[in-house]
Amino acid sequence: MLHLRGMKLKNDLLLRTIGGETVERPPVWLMRQAGRILPQYRALRAKLSGFIELVRTPELAAEVTIQPVDELNVDAAIIFSDILVIPEAMGLPYEMVEKRGPLFPNTISSQTDIERLTSGTPAADELNYVYEAIRITKRELAGRVPLIGFCGAPWTILSYMVEGSGSKTFSKARRFLIQHPEAAHQLLDKITETSIAYLKKKIEAGVNLVQIFDSWAGILSPSLYREFALPYISRMCESIQAVPKIVFAKGAWFALPEFGQLDCEAVGLDWTVEPSWGRAQLGTQQVIQGNLDPCALYGAHDQVRTATLELINKLDARHIVNLGHGVYPDTPLDSVRTFVQTVQNYRYS
Amino acid sequence: MLHLRGMKLKNDLLLRTIGGETVERPPVWLMRQAGRILPQYRALRAKLSGFIELVRTPELAAEVTIQPVDELNVDAAIIFSDILVIPEAMGLPYEMVEKRGPLFPNTISSQTDIERLTSGTPAADELNYVYEAIRITKRELAGRVPLIGFCGAPWTILSYMVEGSGSKTFSKARRFLIQHPEAAHQLLDKITETSIAYLKKKIEAGVNLVQIFDSWAGILSPSLYREFALPYISRMCESIQAVPKIVFAKGAWFALPEFGQLDCEAVGLDWTVEPSWGRAQLGTQQVIQGNLDPCALYGAHDQVRTATLELINKLDARHIVNLGHGVYPDTPLDSVRTFVQTVQNYRYS
Repeated sequence: MLHLRGMKLKNDLLLRTIGGETVERPPVWLMRQAGRILPQYRALRAKLSGFIELVRTPELAAEVTIQPVDELNVDAAIIFSDILVIPEAMGLPYEMVEKRGPLFPNTISSQTDIERLTSGTPAADELNYVYEAIRITKRELAGRVPLIGFCGAPWTILSYMVEGSGSKTFSKARRFLIQHPEAAHQLLDKITETSIAYLKKKIEAGVNLVQIFDSWAGILSPSLYREFALPYISRMCESIQAVPKIVFAKGAWFALPEFGQLDCEAVGLDWTVEPSWGRAQLGTQQVIQGNLDPCALYGAHDQVRTATLELINKLDARHIVNLGHGVYPDTPLDSVRTFVQTVQNYRYS
Repeated sequence: MLHLRGMKLKNDLLLRTIGGETVERPPVWLMRQAGRILPQYRALRAKLSGFIELVRTPELAAEVTIQPVDELNVDAAIIFSDILVIPEAMGLPYEMVEKRGPLFPNTISSQTDIERLTSGTPAADELNYVYEAIRITKRELAGRVPLIGFCGAPWTILSYMVEGSGSKTFSKARRFLIQHPEAAHQLLDKITETSIAYLKKKIEAGVNLVQIFDSWAGILSPSLYREFALPYISRMCESIQAVPKIVFAKGAWFALPEFGQLDCEAVGLDWTVEPSWGRAQLGTQQVIQGNLDPCALYGAHDQVRTATLELINKLDARHIVNLGHGVYPDTPLDSVRTFVQTVQNYRYS
């Protein structure tokens, strides 16, 4: 598959930016750009039994991956998938309950539960539908823009496997770290090995770069984050050398100096971090990705333009423009277009 | 009622600490100490139709307010109530749905909706059951410990009035700030005036100090927080001069330097803020309250003791020990006791 990845991209701005080259303008894409903001996505989704069917059907996953490239002309595609395919591949299936989110019929509560899990390459081998979706997407994109692969960070994946669903506090998952630290490390180790094998297979299938999402970073205290989250992200970064890596840990403002030391090319910031403060905390090694408040896209077009330009002007030329979190499903598509076009009309002087 | 407030307290450690006096040890209480962690509370609650009945029945609210003082020997009582009595008093009633949280049948979506709301003293006059609960509590406490009164910060109250329920993102409420900034300011103004009148009546009824909770501070970008949240908290602080004030804004780590300038005696920190970093950001003017990770109380007794002592040692002698958020309902009571006793056995050298 290397010929696909190696194929010359028509728009390689994201890769040049993350590679540290001097660029004419920042690249732009949106977290959750393949999703409910697009009428095409909603139309397709209405015909299916549910979200998980879409994730598991390579042709359809490829189709929705490409929709925002067609519709919004963003500078990157991100493969349509779900971070929770990893627990599933490890032996913990889940359902997606409409308006409530993911639900795991079985959860992890003991060392025996952890020992029963598959991990590493054998687990990653369960996810052929993802690699197939990537191959189809690459073929159909035909080099228009780079394709991003992703997975959850180990702590975030553990939090769902233990909690069994979304939660405001994830107190059950956090309690597990406190009461069973050794078992937690064992589980994090298995998740990490699986995620590394998974990302490597995604890269083999053709993704040009990867993003690691630590969605629940912000509910851990800094000391728990340093013990149970950072070392595993660090190991993942060190194990993936074939493509550039973006680490996005929502709410982990307190760990930015440590992120500055990670072996990754870019770090995502959420919208509570002032970009200039974020840069100062992070140091100069990495590209910053982010971080417009997703709610800024609810504004009138001139508000969106102003907010977008303000963001670019607050950062240096090592910046991938994105929101500070996934785009909200009810965001007007025209505002998303204004956001993208404002970035694409910008030129570094 | 002044004679009740003026009555000499047997345990005035919290008031001496917040007043800046040199104290022998830090005072300790817990957010949500009057609640499900106590078997007495659960027994009483099982006999009632719901949470709101408990909030509205002064004798019962007083009873559960005093339960943690009896059971845990904490250094303060906090009146059992709900921040959402304010929207209700302004004309927006709510229900508390078991396991789901608050639900407002009507919400605010326009200037007309805002104009219809009662505010200021006429709204605060609707909450006599709270003032009566305070009077009963003061009488029954008989000066054992100080009594804390509280209310939500204006942004947090607005977020429920617009969103209509709890939410992971409060994107509807945040959209309102972006799309209707003038109406938002008008609503925040009405909430602020009502909250000030309400706190003044609580003080008249006998509370010894007040805490303002900005529970949803952390979902606003710093610039929105500075425009739509901070000025109203600041006005509340300036308007309340009769008793000391604690401001606790969960997730507002980015605003700590501004909190350092507020006219309040103490600032609460959530558990994601390293205490020494928080002190450096805040400056030296105020007492710090907080901020043990509520999950630390899931640990074994020696873990709880170690974590508690570590927290005290990280801060100076101007410290009210508390958790960094409300105690989780399934926390073992004996661990809470260990937490409280560890603080009470400590002595500043």
